[in-house]
Amino acid sequence: MSIESDIDNISLEAKRDAAPLSVLPTAAKNAALEAMADALLAAEPAILEANRRDILTAEDKGIPKSLADRLALDKAKIAKMADSVRAIAKLPDPVGRIIDEKKRPNGLWIRKVGVPIGVILIIYESRPNVTADCMALCLKSGNSVILKGGSEALNSNEAIFSAMKAAALAHAVPPGAFGLVRSSDRSAVQRLLGMTGRIDLVIPRGGEGLIRDVAEHSKIPVIKHYKGVCHVFVDAKADLRKAEAIVVNAKTQNPAVCNAMETLLVHEAVADRFLPVIADALRRKKVEIRGDEATRALVGDAKAATEADWSDEYLDLILAVRVVKDLRAAMEHIRRYGSQHSDAIVTEDKASAEAFTSGVDSACVFVNCSTRFNDGGEFGMGAEMGISTDKLHARGPMGLEELTTYKYIVVGDGQVRS
Amino acid sequence: MSIESDIDNISLEAKRDAAPLSVLPTAAKNAALEAMADALLAAEPAILEANRRDILTAEDKGIPKSLADRLALDKAKIAKMADSVRAIAKLPDPVGRIIDEKKRPNGLWIRKVGVPIGVILIIYESRPNVTADCMALCLKSGNSVILKGGSEALNSNEAIFSAMKAAALAHAVPPGAFGLVRSSDRSAVQRLLGMTGRIDLVIPRGGEGLIRDVAEHSKIPVIKHYKGVCHVFVDAKADLRKAEAIVVNAKTQNPAVCNAMETLLVHEAVADRFLPVIADALRRKKVEIRGDEATRALVGDAKAATEADWSDEYLDLILAVRVVKDLRAAMEHIRRYGSQHSDAIVTEDKASAEAFTSGVDSACVFVNCSTRFNDGGEFGMGAEMGISTDKLHARGPMGLEELTTYKYIVVGDGQVRS
Repeated sequence: MSIESDIDNISLEAKRDAAPLSVLPTAAKNAALEAMADALLAAEPAILEANRRDILTAEDKGIPKSLADRLALDKAKIAKMADSVRAIAKLPDPVGRIIDEKKRPNGLWIRKVGVPIGVILIIYESRPNVTADCMALCLKSGNSVILKGGSEALNSNEAIFSAMKAAALAHAVPPGAFGLVRSSDRSAVQRLLGMTGRIDLVIPRGGEGLIRDVAEHSKIPVIKHYKGVCHVFVDAKADLRKAEAIVVNAKTQNPAVCNAMETLLVHEAVADRFLPVIADALRRKKVEIRGDEATRALVGDAKAATEADWSDEYLDLILAVRVVKDLRAAMEHIRRYGSQHSDAIVTEDKASAEAFTSGVDSACVFVNCSTRFNDGGEFGMGAEMGISTDKLHARGPMGLEELTTYKYIVVGDGQVRS
Repeated sequence: MSIESDIDNISLEAKRDAAPLSVLPTAAKNAALEAMADALLAAEPAILEANRRDILTAEDKGIPKSLADRLALDKAKIAKMADSVRAIAKLPDPVGRIIDEKKRPNGLWIRKVGVPIGVILIIYESRPNVTADCMALCLKSGNSVILKGGSEALNSNEAIFSAMKAAALAHAVPPGAFGLVRSSDRSAVQRLLGMTGRIDLVIPRGGEGLIRDVAEHSKIPVIKHYKGVCHVFVDAKADLRKAEAIVVNAKTQNPAVCNAMETLLVHEAVADRFLPVIADALRRKKVEIRGDEATRALVGDAKAATEADWSDEYLDLILAVRVVKDLRAAMEHIRRYGSQHSDAIVTEDKASAEAFTSGVDSACVFVNCSTRFNDGGEFGMGAEMGISTDKLHARGPMGLEELTTYKYIVVGDGQVRS
């Protein structure tokens, strides 16, 4: 079968089965999810074998170790995938939930009800667990999903996909609910991104290059974040012990992820007290500091930050540091260089906290806690489908509810409009 | 000033002032809105004079009477515009509203708070009252608005815009809050639709051609509906007196609008009782019926419907009529030919109503009432910005809340992630 006809079939089936899927009862979806989790565990040998082949190919191609690490599966990771699928089974069904309801003076009863979006295309890189998470989240939210993973993980994705899909189909889930694009051809993605009549939403997950490419070429609505240039601002009225813990956590607890801090802004009133202390703490964690002039005057071994450092997403143990005149200057810096992802203020002053949270236009704004909390799990959403910095539909972590839209159901007793 | 630099200035100012506008207090916005309503009334002679010039030009060009009617203003219409602005002042402020909040086990307090989207571009045709409505809705929801009206209404729009903007600026509203594109050059729109960094949302309102053109060329997210091919299905268990009132209302109360019914589907079990009666009623309202064979067997003067009739949006006193075997066939017809806008079932059977409302994937689904109720005013939203049939962000009538997005504000006491 040609790539084109393969993709045409997948999208056609996805669209066709979106209708029965949208009315699948909660109990049927949950039973299928439990069976999918069981199937993951039962297929463990096949998945590990497929993963071994992917890793060998990757090593032959000489891909970076960080990529190989994200690609690698083991028994514990497969067990975790299965746990995640079961956790999604236990979450409330977002389909059919009443978002709002009211009775109008003319007697009309208007309900705003959660419904699936339809067909969702996920384009992602490396991590094979995304395959399992997306299949489970889309099924629970009543959406068909089309998966386009990276070519480096094709065998692993296929093994996970086949096991889970077979289990779901044995539990009344229609086959179009899950599609996997096996081609690694770029034209395959281009073709999918033009299918406005069959696909309702595209979610790209991966590096900024991948995401920009998808956003640039898609005719279908895209929800995304390009990158996370996240800030922590240590205010004049900050509790500096809290500030130290938050800065160290936001930078080092997992520096490779989008909600890690990349730039530290320090109020000049506390710079001389705070910077030497935090520099010590970060030094112990092997963080390289790139500071402005004021920072370098206080932190001897800091490198000089260039203009490019303020908008860089390092995803590494590197931190840009700047001393700012006041809260307003901090907010101005964030507006200019930030990515509207996750930004925090550390302060004991209520008015400053209030000015920061209302003035900083980011998906998540934090007061006295780490930017690392911008996460579906930490927000109590169960698993997450990604994080959005867009303004429309979903912002911040995307869980099950964010994978639904709504319809209005209006019930009357013969009312007409006059 | 060239078109390009004019447009660049408007969008730059809109973006710049979106920040102060987003934190403008409710009282300041409401005071500005009241002043804008006063200014509309005070500028009545100038607005009517500008409108007279637009109408003369339109008549010289020989535009259709329906278009000229929509373009024409009078004292009553201006008073109604002012009333609408005052009504918007009285609505609750959607900015800062708490959409959801929760305390997490680790003590974090997470609030989901309504915030403005940023800069909204409205592209519309003919009706000058859209200028006033959009300025008021965008100001109340804290968004900058860029207005691009039709060239046929340029003088009217400019008179309304100038009066309202001057009044708002005298009440602490930043100037970038309102921009009017004076060029009728197509390249002006093209240029705007590429400004992803400065404009957050595009709402096109007008004919299908205009909307398709915007959706096709925009790099910015678009919320829209192409057309309203709305259905009423009269079920086997319908109360036929209710059905008659609803069908007549949905077709004739205002046939030129998107929520008017275009196709009537009748269950075969009641076709012979219902069709002759409804045909009589519609005949009295001068509605032309285009029916399938079964309909024509019962309604002697019905024309033959062609395949094209099932997907036509007549916006006129014409109705396509089809007899269907059952509820499932009705839903299948709607899925195939409908526009996911407004579809109604008339039935006294709860199970049929339930199957219809969950199975029909339209923005608004109605039981025993007219499709004409898909309207912001009728939903109690005050004024409306348009109606969406899209799946993302807003579906159905768009009021103030639909002109906002949200951010998460997370307040802690030193929490870090482990």
